[in-house]
Amino acid sequence: MNIFIVFAHPEPKSLNASLLNFSVEVLKEAGHQVQVSDLYAMRWKAVADRDDFPWLDAGVPLQYANASGEAFTQHRQLPEIEAEQQKLLWADFVIFQFPLWWYSMPAILKGWVDRVYAYKFAYGVGVHQGEKWGERFGEGVLKGRKAMVVLTAGGRELHYSPRGVNGYLEDLLWPIQHGILFYPGMYPLPPFTAFEVNPRTAPEAFEQIKAAYKERLLTLETTPVIQYRSQNGGDYDGQQLLKPGREGKGVTGLAIHQIHPRVGSYGGEAEAPL
Amino acid sequence: MNIFIVFAHPEPKSLNASLLNFSVEVLKEAGHQVQVSDLYAMRWKAVADRDDFPWLDAGVPLQYANASGEAFTQHRQLPEIEAEQQKLLWADFVIFQFPLWWYSMPAILKGWVDRVYAYKFAYGVGVHQGEKWGERFGEGVLKGRKAMVVLTAGGRELHYSPRGVNGYLEDLLWPIQHGILFYPGMYPLPPFTAFEVNPRTAPEAFEQIKAAYKERLLTLETTPVIQYRSQNGGDYDGQQLLKPGREGKGVTGLAIHQIHPRVGSYGGEAEAPL
Repeated sequence: MNIFIVFAHPEPKSLNASLLNFSVEVLKEAGHQVQVSDLYAMRWKAVADRDDFPWLDAGVPLQYANASGEAFTQHRQLPEIEAEQQKLLWADFVIFQFPLWWYSMPAILKGWVDRVYAYKFAYGVGVHQGEKWGERFGEGVLKGRKAMVVLTAGGRELHYSPRGVNGYLEDLLWPIQHGILFYPGMYPLPPFTAFEVNPRTAPEAFEQIKAAYKERLLTLETTPVIQYRSQNGGDYDGQQLLKPGREGKGVTGLAIHQIHPRVGSYGGEAEAPL
Repeated sequence: MNIFIVFAHPEPKSLNASLLNFSVEVLKEAGHQVQVSDLYAMRWKAVADRDDFPWLDAGVPLQYANASGEAFTQHRQLPEIEAEQQKLLWADFVIFQFPLWWYSMPAILKGWVDRVYAYKFAYGVGVHQGEKWGERFGEGVLKGRKAMVVLTAGGRELHYSPRGVNGYLEDLLWPIQHGILFYPGMYPLPPFTAFEVNPRTAPEAFEQIKAAYKERLLTLETTPVIQYRSQNGGDYDGQQLLKPGREGKGVTGLAIHQIHPRVGSYGGEAEAPL
């Protein structure tokens, strides 16, 4: 497969960077083609602003979506934006690798999304007419591809479990896995997460992390995806609301948007779905 | 009250900017003191990197948390970081205002969090010993303050409702409202959201938005907060897991972390909690 890794960590000597380098070796050895966007090394511009559209007249107020859509359709995007979009199109599989900072992506990675996911490229795709609300959430420009979040967290795994004080990791990652990966058509695999990663992480712990990650990397094609419901697959109505009864008895929250979510893992009294 | 608004929109002529200016007038007229950090106007550096620590020896690998903790405790943070922390400490109420980009904050605002929420300032606060896991989630450096997310979204309100395809807005905002505002001690009010905001938004619609926002601004002190459970208030055990039975029957998902969440709004069969 063609594998595109978008990587966000400021330190080349970090565990994250070592893990990245390791993964590139593993993937190439397994016969995959690999491209990496190391955002910090690229000095990626995180802030989306009018400098992204040098052709925009100074007197015209910036409407970012409109400008990005115009730049995309008229082939006048900045080369750096175009290049990232080409990597996405080249890829069969996309990995976002980052340390979890404040329960989300480092700003540089969010800025990659803000600027690369142009209007008419990543959104505003497909027909918006009647009951059809475009091609997204399972369809779109990146349809047919898979993706995976790879993250390191300083906190303990328990704190990210369904009853953990941080909130269940699966729910924390919803804006990314559903809203950013699934939106333009990529089905995400369950994330790979290394917990309790900090400056005191011992070499033995890192060896375990690498071993576990290697297993995930060697099973990218066979690991079942998170079964998010596609928007246009029949589960949502003309208002893009989940039709009544689609979810299993007792399933509430973001889990309703998954076929066969891991219900009951919250420790409540919900029944397992069919 | 002292009200600190952190604002992130690239266009001074945007609806967002007009709403900000309107809000400052309303708040001042109501007798509040107001400070605004207009991140784009400030050309806020979004990317957290070693340039934030000019004193850090070039040969030393960057460990951002350690470096920010050292800078904070030794009073050698960059003046821009120090200034933002002072505004937070000055404030009784903090507003984050931004357009929802890919279901989260624009990168420049995430970068404000990444860089201003230094170790020992926003986290790593309080005792970590035995069953005590620091002072956070309802306690911390910003304890006693309230906050509110003010956001504009291009999508329709229904799409962000409990059964909407985007995911329930309350869950989408969990990483921000719980993970960023509540973490250092601020209790968030329910968010103010203007939906279907786009270049075609008519002046009449904007007048309605302003009127609705004004009502929220004039009731900041009396509007009930989102009742997130504090970490150290007795609901979580020594592993920071929610104790069994704390949530109402049928409550699952992120709602378990709220006292009296709006259960049933997902359309399932959950009973209302006590």
